[in-house]
Amino acid sequence: MSDRRLFTRRIDLRKGHVELVHGAGGKASAQLFEELFRPAFSNPALDRGDDSACLTMEGGRIVVATDGHVVSPLFFPGGDIGSLAVHGTVNDLAMGGATPRHLTAGFILEEGFPFSDLKRIVDSMAAAAAEAGVTIVAGDTKVVERGKGDGIFITTTGLGILPADWPEPPGAHRARPGDVILVSGTLGDHGTTILAARDDLPLMAPIESDTAPLHGLVSALHAAAPGVRTLRDPTRGGFATAINEICRASGTGALVREPALPIRRPVEAACEILGVDPLYLANEGKLIAIVPPAEADAALAALKSHPLGADAAIVGEIVADEDCFVQVETVMGGRRMLDWLVGDPLPRIC
Amino acid sequence: MSDRRLFTRRIDLRKGHVELVHGAGGKASAQLFEELFRPAFSNPALDRGDDSACLTMEGGRIVVATDGHVVSPLFFPGGDIGSLAVHGTVNDLAMGGATPRHLTAGFILEEGFPFSDLKRIVDSMAAAAAEAGVTIVAGDTKVVERGKGDGIFITTTGLGILPADWPEPPGAHRARPGDVILVSGTLGDHGTTILAARDDLPLMAPIESDTAPLHGLVSALHAAAPGVRTLRDPTRGGFATAINEICRASGTGALVREPALPIRRPVEAACEILGVDPLYLANEGKLIAIVPPAEADAALAALKSHPLGADAAIVGEIVADEDCFVQVETVMGGRRMLDWLVGDPLPRIC
Repeated sequence: MSDRRLFTRRIDLRKGHVELVHGAGGKASAQLFEELFRPAFSNPALDRGDDSACLTMEGGRIVVATDGHVVSPLFFPGGDIGSLAVHGTVNDLAMGGATPRHLTAGFILEEGFPFSDLKRIVDSMAAAAAEAGVTIVAGDTKVVERGKGDGIFITTTGLGILPADWPEPPGAHRARPGDVILVSGTLGDHGTTILAARDDLPLMAPIESDTAPLHGLVSALHAAAPGVRTLRDPTRGGFATAINEICRASGTGALVREPALPIRRPVEAACEILGVDPLYLANEGKLIAIVPPAEADAALAALKSHPLGADAAIVGEIVADEDCFVQVETVMGGRRMLDWLVGDPLPRIC
Repeated sequence: MSDRRLFTRRIDLRKGHVELVHGAGGKASAQLFEELFRPAFSNPALDRGDDSACLTMEGGRIVVATDGHVVSPLFFPGGDIGSLAVHGTVNDLAMGGATPRHLTAGFILEEGFPFSDLKRIVDSMAAAAAEAGVTIVAGDTKVVERGKGDGIFITTTGLGILPADWPEPPGAHRARPGDVILVSGTLGDHGTTILAARDDLPLMAPIESDTAPLHGLVSALHAAAPGVRTLRDPTRGGFATAINEICRASGTGALVREPALPIRRPVEAACEILGVDPLYLANEGKLIAIVPPAEADAALAALKSHPLGADAAIVGEIVADEDCFVQVETVMGGRRMLDWLVGDPLPRIC
């Protein structure tokens, strides 16, 4: 590359704002890449500056997942849209049994968005990617006019490798009657954090998003319970929707024991005030695992021995049910139906 | 999967609209996938309904590219945001020398967006993907409140394989002095179409977007000119910006002969009225190829023999220039500098 300076002045990352010209594909777009994105994400594939990245990956089974992120507010206790955009897609790969390797990132920015916020988000993505052991190898930035977006939307796509010790990848369709249902920790933390941040709710105790990359936890779980059939991160729609999806995909039902479900007391209290059920709230650092009964204890021990699974619990089992109903055994011993999230949207939780 | 009907009523694809609940991750989100996206995109990886797709790909060199699409208007002569979202990413893969295989698609929808438009766009994506020989294997849908988006944004990520006959993939950094610059056809068609559609401009003759998948053309070119060094599709920023990017990445300059640049007469006329230079307007079905001089004639013949390259032309050569300047030899024999696109944004052209 030539030494000739392409840009006469540097972008003002402290006081500047995104303008339409930064999405026009010309000199300003190149400058945004060179001065903001590339320093944060730098790696050989990205640095080449072509419109695609060429990656050397072992052959065989590549796992791919994609997730758009539109969370509001952009910054919240425990994370921000940047870390969330990394974890959301890394976790979709992890739930497919894959070792995450690479991410791509598509940014849709609104005219007027402060560079200081963009830099903070991009730095957070870079830190989350480094922690998760993935490189951001390709990207794209578009800018829409003021009032046609909402600050920043980030769509990430992840590429991973399915290791040979997963002869059949985990999948929702593989659950079968008798299997044991585990969760890796407390439910509803992320969703409650976002709702509380949005409503500026006074809390009885600080609540944080649980956003975290889960592939290390999956790896520990799989080593202890190689027969694990299904992994699912209960994001939008929460635990209730994820367990219903699993039952529907596998043609089974489920029986869940309410007292066994780990929910933090301040989350429970906030949900009562907000009038929402924590079982329908998004989690961003938790997983549901369906394992054969013989491996349940080993699976629980493996989860509990990992920092991200300290509060793991066995919460129920898969049962034969042609109607694919999920039932909850309540504290009082009665039973109630746990349906999918229906209506009452909780928009832009992730 | 059970026979139990999960949804009591079908989505009204004719008169219905996207609501926030379709992005909440619950029953309505599942219904949107089952009744709109899945019928259009159906393939085994997608149909499994997990949050990731497991793909069997030959080992070695995987090429990945990502592109956000925010074009306005959504429908235009020659295409729409759906076909553009497929071609844009397929072409980024093709410019990397790859055979496109799979796409993922992330949709960000605005509350109130008509299902009829969504279905038309999704069907157009499905048709474009089928024509390009790629499958849409994973996706995601988010919904933002009315006024926080603009109908629909689509971010696609593509996965391709770099064939063994590209020992070194094509790249902008590989151009060197003496190389010949070719374009595969007329310039400015897409950008002019979008600008004319936006301004409702009366045209002297119909203009259409050139949006098309280019990997077949690349394949023909590469067979005839195996030494091809650089491929670039001149999208945002147009021919002028793309050739400057190539020069900057390779530390070279370029000399372009203006009379050789193929531009349709109605495009030229429309650009005069609009006060824009067609060399800065986006193309969505054209490529720039940099080839060693010994292969230039074979490259041109190969391009011309392909339906998408009928108007191909040799337009100049790469020269030694530490300043990385691109110069244009005008019709009158004079020379002018051809800079990157600077300022004057042409927002949301793709």
